[in-house]
Amino acid sequence: MHQDVIKVAITGGSGYTGGELVRLLHFHPKVEITQITSQRLAGKFVHNAHPNLRQVSRHKFCTLSELAPCDLLFLCLPHGRAMDSIDAFRTLAPKIIDLSGDFRLRNPSDYDKWYGRAHPRPELLTEFVYGIPELHRARMARADLVTGAGCNATATILALRPLVQAKLVDSVVVEVKAGSSEGGNASSDASHHPERSGVVRSYKPTGHRHVAEMQQALDGIPIHFSATAIEMVRGILATCHVFLREDVDEKALWKLYRQAYGDEPFIRIVKERSGIHRYPEPKLLAGTNYCDIGFERDPHSNRLVVLSAIDNLMKGAGGQGVQALNAMHGWDERTGLEFPGLHPI
Amino acid sequence: MHQDVIKVAITGGSGYTGGELVRLLHFHPKVEITQITSQRLAGKFVHNAHPNLRQVSRHKFCTLSELAPCDLLFLCLPHGRAMDSIDAFRTLAPKIIDLSGDFRLRNPSDYDKWYGRAHPRPELLTEFVYGIPELHRARMARADLVTGAGCNATATILALRPLVQAKLVDSVVVEVKAGSSEGGNASSDASHHPERSGVVRSYKPTGHRHVAEMQQALDGIPIHFSATAIEMVRGILATCHVFLREDVDEKALWKLYRQAYGDEPFIRIVKERSGIHRYPEPKLLAGTNYCDIGFERDPHSNRLVVLSAIDNLMKGAGGQGVQALNAMHGWDERTGLEFPGLHPI
Amino acid sequence: MHQDVIKVAITGGSGYTGGELVRLLHFHPKVEITQITSQRLAGKFVHNAHPNLRQVSRHKFCTLSELAPCDLLFLCLPHGRAMDSIDAFRTLAPKIIDLSGDFRLRNPSDYDKWYGRAHPRPELLTEFVYGIPELHRARMARADLVTGAGCNATATILALRPLVQAKLVDSVVVEVKAGSSEGGNASSDASHHPERSGVVRSYKPTGHRHVAEMQQALDGIPIHFSATAIEMVRGILATCHVFLREDVDEKALWKLYRQAYGDEPFIRIVKERSGIHRYPEPKLLAGTNYCDIGFERDPHSNRLVVLSAIDNLMKGAGGQGVQALNAMHGWDERTGLEFPGLHPI
Amino acid sequence: MHQDVIKVAITGGSGYTGGELVRLLHFHPKVEITQITSQRLAGKFVHNAHPNLRQVSRHKFCTLSELAPCDLLFLCLPHGRAMDSIDAFRTLAPKIIDLSGDFRLRNPSDYDKWYGRAHPRPELLTEFVYGIPELHRARMARADLVTGAGCNATATILALRPLVQAKLVDSVVVEVKAGSSEGGNASSDASHHPERSGVVRSYKPTGHRHVAEMQQALDGIPIHFSATAIEMVRGILATCHVFLREDVDEKALWKLYRQAYGDEPFIRIVKERSGIHRYPEPKLLAGTNYCDIGFERDPHSNRLVVLSAIDNLMKGAGGQGVQALNAMHGWDERTGLEFPGLHPI
Repeated sequence: MHQDVIKVAITGGSGYTGGELVRLLHFHPKVEITQITSQRLAGKFVHNAHPNLRQVSRHKFCTLSELAPCDLLFLCLPHGRAMDSIDAFRTLAPKIIDLSGDFRLRNPSDYDKWYGRAHPRPELLTEFVYGIPELHRARMARADLVTGAGCNATATILALRPLVQAKLVDSVVVEVKAGSSEGGNASSDASHHPERSGVVRSYKPTGHRHVAEMQQALDGIPIHFSATAIEMVRGILATCHVFLREDVDEKALWKLYRQAYGDEPFIRIVKERSGIHRYPEPKLLAGTNYCDIGFERDPHSNRLVVLSAIDNLMKGAGGQGVQALNAMHGWDERTGLEFPGLHPI
Repeated sequence: MHQDVIKVAITGGSGYTGGELVRLLHFHPKVEITQITSQRLAGKFVHNAHPNLRQVSRHKFCTLSELAPCDLLFLCLPHGRAMDSIDAFRTLAPKIIDLSGDFRLRNPSDYDKWYGRAHPRPELLTEFVYGIPELHRARMARADLVTGAGCNATATILALRPLVQAKLVDSVVVEVKAGSSEGGNASSDASHHPERSGVVRSYKPTGHRHVAEMQQALDGIPIHFSATAIEMVRGILATCHVFLREDVDEKALWKLYRQAYGDEPFIRIVKERSGIHRYPEPKLLAGTNYCDIGFERDPHSNRLVVLSAIDNLMKGAGGQGVQALNAMHGWDERTGLEFPGLHPI
Repeated sequence: MHQDVIKVAITGGSGYTGGELVRLLHFHPKVEITQITSQRLAGKFVHNAHPNLRQVSRHKFCTLSELAPCDLLFLCLPHGRAMDSIDAFRTLAPKIIDLSGDFRLRNPSDYDKWYGRAHPRPELLTEFVYGIPELHRARMARADLVTGAGCNATATILALRPLVQAKLVDSVVVEVKAGSSEGGNASSDASHHPERSGVVRSYKPTGHRHVAEMQQALDGIPIHFSATAIEMVRGILATCHVFLREDVDEKALWKLYRQAYGDEPFIRIVKERSGIHRYPEPKLLAGTNYCDIGFERDPHSNRLVVLSAIDNLMKGAGGQGVQALNAMHGWDERTGLEFPGLHPI
Repeated sequence: MHQDVIKVAITGGSGYTGGELVRLLHFHPKVEITQITSQRLAGKFVHNAHPNLRQVSRHKFCTLSELAPCDLLFLCLPHGRAMDSIDAFRTLAPKIIDLSGDFRLRNPSDYDKWYGRAHPRPELLTEFVYGIPELHRARMARADLVTGAGCNATATILALRPLVQAKLVDSVVVEVKAGSSEGGNASSDASHHPERSGVVRSYKPTGHRHVAEMQQALDGIPIHFSATAIEMVRGILATCHVFLREDVDEKALWKLYRQAYGDEPFIRIVKERSGIHRYPEPKLLAGTNYCDIGFERDPHSNRLVVLSAIDNLMKGAGGQGVQALNAMHGWDERTGLEFPGLHPI
């Protein structure tokens, strides 16, 4: 191992986000994976949970209690576990990236409102840097504690942030179309294939928790959010109906988005005049860390439709976690995230 | 044949809507199908285009020029054909149901705006009854000319009509998720399976023609419409984000919808507190003429989310055409439309 | 109710097969459904399990212990239950149709071999008529006890029976491609959508139980069977690679199949020279009771490929059960089974 | 560029195989892509055809006539083109890898039989090395002309080769389940999404061309082949029903396959006793160059079921082409082919 390789452990490694981290960090030139926990599968090879890693990773799962000190700890536990055990985890590693929702909101009262419980360590909330590098990479570079960002929140925030910063947004209706992996790896009646296959299921017409993150990152603009589960495993398309405070034409919008994202390695403006791939398409992003953004001005009203696509397990979870890891260490943010996606798929 | 059986011919019978008409009318106890046209497949059995009708229908396609007089003529031609040949068709049958978009809009100038051409027979536009029986069944009962309604328009109009009539709607954002059969039976790069499979394709973020029909039927309320093609063959889910002019609670909404649709044979209010089928689900409606409608009030704003699901080829095309046929003749509107749909599917 | 309506109860009505029976019998002109049992959902409306029946069926589930006497009892219980309780069920109804696997095999020792337990009522095995009407309709007409047939077995037996009867078959390799509903309505890791979606899963390369039924109905010819789960909810395609004992050309095969099935209401020979629907296609059969059969002679060997498609919940379960019900009562076998299927789907 | 980087051009770069080559070679450390041809899209960016390469590749397509000399030329043209123009291509590059079917068969008369035309350059057939490195890597290391291998042929040959070499095979029935990308990127009625979606389409029950390649590589054993198109974009599962000449138990089979493939970087034996990923699964291989192989002995007969999964565009086309490129140059065969695949997907 090279001198500059850091030791990273992953908790909750049998879940889908954990699996993506194992896959990505296995090929990351600056990282050595030391341990991967799973209470359920402790002692078994990781390819039992992640069959794509057969003959790729030779790691076995261990339990949480077997965790040894390391340089950085990824937490991929179910919501609520990280906040309860954060002190123990901090004794194991100087740096932590928590991909659950436990430390995303800065205002403690938001936990009462959206998660239905008081936060046990509210004083830590402002120490965690919110995990979208495009927003907070400077802070990440000097942070020890970073939280992930919700997948729906990431797609929405990146779509709207340039407009909000330009004070152009009056209000917005956001419709997210999401795949089944967003629900995690635990089976249920709702995920049973004959029932889940081919659905257009309005699983959260109102009241989605990620709205809290979105409003926190988007200056509190009114966000009317709905989520619909569709036939897809990976992927999110956020369709954002933005009502503008003033008229802006498409040329100005191009300029605005280019200024905001022209240098971003993982954001592409996708807006073609012809062809069959004119707007962001989540299926093309499977396995990649891209967030593709497109837009169309409605000539008959003050509406602007902004489209934003990501892979929920990558830019919406594990990929963004690795991007944050890179940002925390001053490495090229693309390191370990070069896969460009497949076509056709 | 019974005395009260009417003779019906179908033009454009090789398309998907035409195929549904053949399937439905074949089993309709009051109808005899006399002829089915297809310029492309003239001389061939209808099961060449519609393999589900093998050993069910023994009809062969004929050409338009072979059409003989009948009691009622269904027009399922590509948009633009019916308006150009309407006079010829009227010499063949005293009653016509046109399922294209050619006579849906009452205001001739809307054709210039949305269809890009002047209407050749504008004086007929007010003679055609707009084809949603729930709105116009009384007029249908005495009409000779009935037009269909757009599939997206049908789902949206039925979802919103009770709210509009109660003057509750300030504005609405409508997001339609649609299947691939909406594009018809002609193949293209966009419909090529490796490209179309699994998409979340924003094919009409703004500017969809059906908005004209919606506004005509919904008192001109502001409608912000987008359509997204998803992995599905049949089906539409319209998610309508309604911004209310006054506060209305869910109890009052239940009352409103029950009053509007309590006696409707094809509209069901679908809103469950638990289970995996809490809201309208288009896949359950494949082959049926139902429009399932559900709703959820956003407690944090003046938004009401109304969900509306149909089978685009049934309640959105052929099924609604048969329902209109029934309404025109004073028959029970359910005649020939009894299929309840499948589960699982 | 008419004098000739019989009273039918359904046990195990919350499963997928039970749901199909409720759907079919609800519209059956000779049947009144009296009770539908579900231990899990007793007291709830049937549309809680079968959302397609909203506003169609007003029945509520009851428990097994609440069952009252009726004219005919359908048993749709998990395998093993019917054989343990058959005597109790017989006190409730003079006629029974058991759609489980409990009474399909005539030789008691086959239960030890394929189901891993001794049969508790072996003397009943020869009283039950095996449930494929095309084979045993004459016996059904005078039977009180009828068993269903396995879905894979039905597709395979109907494909091969004419060849076996003509002594043409040396051996056969049968490859079944099956949808997810074949596994029933209980969720599991294997049926979790992100895992089950898009699979080509060799779930039973060898050793499938249905082979016992096949060999029983096919004179013991050697059958090499494999089953593969694919992306589909309903449907089976059985590809049968038949090795012939003597040369037979396609003309002779046409004649053979026409003689065997020319008058069968639910068997269609599907074999076109051109077009995109040249062979049996299960998706076109969703909701129908058809078994579509096609074939192609391999000009380079003694192989004949026979293709057979059904809807596993219809001709493979509930639909065939209703067909058997009709056969038992001397009714037109098509009664209640008229739905022709959808296209496109 | 480093000294050891070779210049590679790709003809037919707008097709699916060409797109995979562009994706793979773009990241290949020993290769510089110099030109990519497309007659149809000449002058346009490659991301017009391959939207996954947006901001990844800045290449534009050129015409065939614009091709400049290079070190190695990939031919991805429709079948028939390479054989007609091979002399012209050889003037452009000292090394050629042809991924069409034009030079796969060594016996000229096979072209008459399987492709329906005489081969124009039969004397070249024995100069081309057949493109499965696991079979011919030594010859590739000194070859200038390499041909690809059919996707179905690759999956089948790798599954059966160890058994054939051990003289264990009497005959075999091979059933391939294939995705829609196998048909290429040209749309047709057969590939129209409403028709192609969800099919189990027996598109080649007998007479598939790839049988010629299989028999050439498998010592002429009798192969009974059928192909079925299913709901999938990428991927092949070949289910091989092998009839053994002598009894072999699973332990001996493990040994046989381990000896054959234990050191192969792209072949994995997949055979688990439990879990939901017990056998090869093509969806897990999307984007990878793996061929996963599993097997199960039928205890009731002399049948052995061997399962083989690949991504048809990777190990079945472009990926294997890059592996061959590596073998021709003495590079680690894994170079540029490290992507392990995704889970879930």
